[in-house]
Amino acid sequence: MAKLTEIGWNEFTSLSLEAKRPYLARQDGMPYHTLFAQQFDRSLLERLCALANRIRFINKSKEGALYLKSVLAHKRAMLYFSQPSSRTFLSHLAACQLLGITTGSVRDAATSSEFKGESKEDSIRTFSSYFDMIIMRSPEQGLAEKMAWELSNSSRPVPILNAGSGKDQHPTQALLDVYTLMRSFENNGGVDGRTVVFCGDLLRGRTVRSLSYLLTEFSGVRQLFVAPDELQVPPDVTAILDRKGVAYEISGDLRACVARADAVYMTRIQDEWDSSKGASAKIDTHRFKFGAEELAILKPEGVIMHPLPRRDEIATCCDRDPRAMYWRQMRNGMWIRAALIASTFGFEESIMNCGY
Amino acid sequence: MAKLTEIGWNEFTSLSLEAKRPYLARQDGMPYHTLFAQQFDRSLLERLCALANRIRFINKSKEGALYLKSVLAHKRAMLYFSQPSSRTFLSHLAACQLLGITTGSVRDAATSSEFKGESKEDSIRTFSSYFDMIIMRSPEQGLAEKMAWELSNSSRPVPILNAGSGKDQHPTQALLDVYTLMRSFENNGGVDGRTVVFCGDLLRGRTVRSLSYLLTEFSGVRQLFVAPDELQVPPDVTAILDRKGVAYEISGDLRACVARADAVYMTRIQDEWDSSKGASAKIDTHRFKFGAEELAILKPEGVIMHPLPRRDEIATCCDRDPRAMYWRQMRNGMWIRAALIASTFGFEESIMNCGY
Amino acid sequence: MAKLTEIGWNEFTSLSLEAKRPYLARQDGMPYHTLFAQQFDRSLLERLCALANRIRFINKSKEGALYLKSVLAHKRAMLYFSQPSSRTFLSHLAACQLLGITTGSVRDAATSSEFKGESKEDSIRTFSSYFDMIIMRSPEQGLAEKMAWELSNSSRPVPILNAGSGKDQHPTQALLDVYTLMRSFENNGGVDGRTVVFCGDLLRGRTVRSLSYLLTEFSGVRQLFVAPDELQVPPDVTAILDRKGVAYEISGDLRACVARADAVYMTRIQDEWDSSKGASAKIDTHRFKFGAEELAILKPEGVIMHPLPRRDEIATCCDRDPRAMYWRQMRNGMWIRAALIASTFGFEESIMNCGY
Repeated sequence: MAKLTEIGWNEFTSLSLEAKRPYLARQDGMPYHTLFAQQFDRSLLERLCALANRIRFINKSKEGALYLKSVLAHKRAMLYFSQPSSRTFLSHLAACQLLGITTGSVRDAATSSEFKGESKEDSIRTFSSYFDMIIMRSPEQGLAEKMAWELSNSSRPVPILNAGSGKDQHPTQALLDVYTLMRSFENNGGVDGRTVVFCGDLLRGRTVRSLSYLLTEFSGVRQLFVAPDELQVPPDVTAILDRKGVAYEISGDLRACVARADAVYMTRIQDEWDSSKGASAKIDTHRFKFGAEELAILKPEGVIMHPLPRRDEIATCCDRDPRAMYWRQMRNGMWIRAALIASTFGFEESIMNCGY
Repeated sequence: MAKLTEIGWNEFTSLSLEAKRPYLARQDGMPYHTLFAQQFDRSLLERLCALANRIRFINKSKEGALYLKSVLAHKRAMLYFSQPSSRTFLSHLAACQLLGITTGSVRDAATSSEFKGESKEDSIRTFSSYFDMIIMRSPEQGLAEKMAWELSNSSRPVPILNAGSGKDQHPTQALLDVYTLMRSFENNGGVDGRTVVFCGDLLRGRTVRSLSYLLTEFSGVRQLFVAPDELQVPPDVTAILDRKGVAYEISGDLRACVARADAVYMTRIQDEWDSSKGASAKIDTHRFKFGAEELAILKPEGVIMHPLPRRDEIATCCDRDPRAMYWRQMRNGMWIRAALIASTFGFEESIMNCGY
Repeated sequence: MAKLTEIGWNEFTSLSLEAKRPYLARQDGMPYHTLFAQQFDRSLLERLCALANRIRFINKSKEGALYLKSVLAHKRAMLYFSQPSSRTFLSHLAACQLLGITTGSVRDAATSSEFKGESKEDSIRTFSSYFDMIIMRSPEQGLAEKMAWELSNSSRPVPILNAGSGKDQHPTQALLDVYTLMRSFENNGGVDGRTVVFCGDLLRGRTVRSLSYLLTEFSGVRQLFVAPDELQVPPDVTAILDRKGVAYEISGDLRACVARADAVYMTRIQDEWDSSKGASAKIDTHRFKFGAEELAILKPEGVIMHPLPRRDEIATCCDRDPRAMYWRQMRNGMWIRAALIASTFGFEESIMNCGY
């Protein structure tokens, strides 16, 4: 059980992310509440990836799939998406369904607006009255954290899984990115020592921020940041790399970087965060797209990733190349989320050791 | 089976609520269609509360939860919410899920507007074609009753559960309120002879109206109505109390009443029914809120209830007091709805007697 | 498995519907992708109707219903309804639920608009990442076909079921219409040699177009088309009948045709397709409605059908006549869709031969 009962809200929220970690963990080290990417260290990442691999394997047979559906058949989850996102919604839904969890949802603005008359704390208490877990997505930074503290200090604590909170955190996206890298290189020397290129809108994409952090849990991963000057990786990200002694480079030359890359992580321009409408459109981004020529210079064992949705950052001519990992990356999201949810309820061991 | 086939619509609808009762009942006395709070007499309330307690207990173990999920695993329910209400929706959904019922839903105005081309009778026939039960919420008074009659007289009768019809009826809310009172006092002398305070918008809150009625099924319950003059309990409610010889008082002094109360039922101002926008805001309601001072004078075994959502009728400083019953009241809604739905399908006895 | 991998998109899309058929079929002849009514020949129609009858029978007992829920309990389906239609949505949902399939959905414009930034191909790949089947409804003609080709040529092929694409195709509606005719006459000589009257908006109703085609798979079915001149059956439909040597008549006299009919298929005016708003309202349609007088002259074993929703094409006084088949027709939709989905996943034989 989380120990959030032992700390006041003001004290908790003023802690560093690393210091918050133990308050959110189960006794076995797995997260009880999943709020931010920084909760995962190398050991947890290895355990979750092993569990995701196991779940994927078990699910291949009908018998295995039915076993998985029995694991959490006694649990029900609420998907509370006050910021709509069908892709993330469906991925979490599918993860729940794989484990037999039945679900309820509030996913559109019209429905969730009814709750406006009451405080967010009261809404969350409502959901915790009816469900055993709350998977929430919100435009409001820090909300998931507040709700986790509130629930842990209520008479009916249930775990919170943060499925995206504002510009801030989207921890399961970070997990699926790492999982994709680990799977891509699992028979090939692993992630340690690899060169990872990030390209696109590195300023505002929270996926870049989270993945960059999690890669510091591996040894000797070199990070190359390729973007227009206006959208380069912000100082708080590189400050962490500096502090941890991680090698990185800032560049404007995608091709030169692709030639050295083991993985290329493309991202779209996040123009929904433009301070004035159309501001991003004025930035010259044509040199920050991955097409046939980049494909030609990428190593044979290199991989191309993208958190999706894409616009034109990756040409569709790349889609059937075996190194294009973005579709599998999306499906990996379902497996790693299933692993995380099963762990949240304490079923890591029984799945790892089941007879399937 | 309901005997609605033996009576024409015009004759049925002109009956008193009490006279309608037998037409809606199963052979075992439980409701087949659940349309209004007045269907429940003391004996039915006792049976439903016992069943809700049983379901709550069975659900504590994984084995028990899986047994419950098997009870109605062969049934499917339609949640038709043409008047959106996420709280009521989720509570009924959770109740269905506990019993293994799979569900479909129409819950937003945009989707349900498609049905506008056709008559409501045709829409309901559509739902009854695909599902085994219809849980409906509608802004239209009396609609659930009409639909129940229509379906009982069709070639595919299925039960209707009224989840709120206009200002009119919301029978499962009344059930959960009574259930909460019965649980609160079950080891402590029961509900008979208690003093219940109703406070807030007593004119327009249908929960007050229904609970006031159901309390007349108990012996010697005194009802104290505390509200601004403009929002006091209407004459048709007190007329019933007069007719049944139930003691009640009309008051403007919350504290004096709280001091005598076994239960305080707070309600919010229902300003959505204002005839002119903002009319309620002109009423002085500041003396009709429950805060620290009221808490201090409430009996040690007293309980505070609220149908939720609340605004500021109850101060959040009361939330962790053991006498604050409103969160448990909400969860009670799920249990009593599960009891009602199981009974509708004739599973009262098998759940009461199961081995869990 | 579909052989869409062996043919390019341009070549495939230029084929006739009949020539496309084998590319969409499973090895056992059943559809893998279900895209258009012309995929079904007499033999497939007989197999699907037999399976639908079997499923309907098995579902009568609790044990049978639970068996059915186990058949596809390891599968999950996505209902992607970018053109909302609650009736069609609920029918497909119910069919999935009968077979134990868990579902996810995108069904309103607001939610699906998020996908606008990405190509439809990418959206469909997203759904195929998380689900085992995609049931899609779209205002865009031909979209389901394109998506079926795309998915069959991806690394994760999943079947597509077209639940309506523009004015174009709605194959499961055609199936349920044929199934209703087959059931109506199954103890009474069958569909061969019957006289079927189509009445209403024959120009724009895609159900008429599809059913007219499928009836050519039976011997000696005479088709009578009754409509205002402006809404008469279009030449491409009668061209098929001419080519196949099927007897048909064009008429403006409903009563004369009803007197000869074994089945009367009524349709509503599809004014949503009016080129100028209100154009349909100017057409005199009062002679194209079915009421008490038509009922009086319909044969005792005749049947009245309607794809629903209806407006006033059929008077409600007909609703309880045993020849009114439109409610059962709607429920037939659920059974035949369940049969189709079970067949898509290769479970025709195991259901036909199960012990229930």
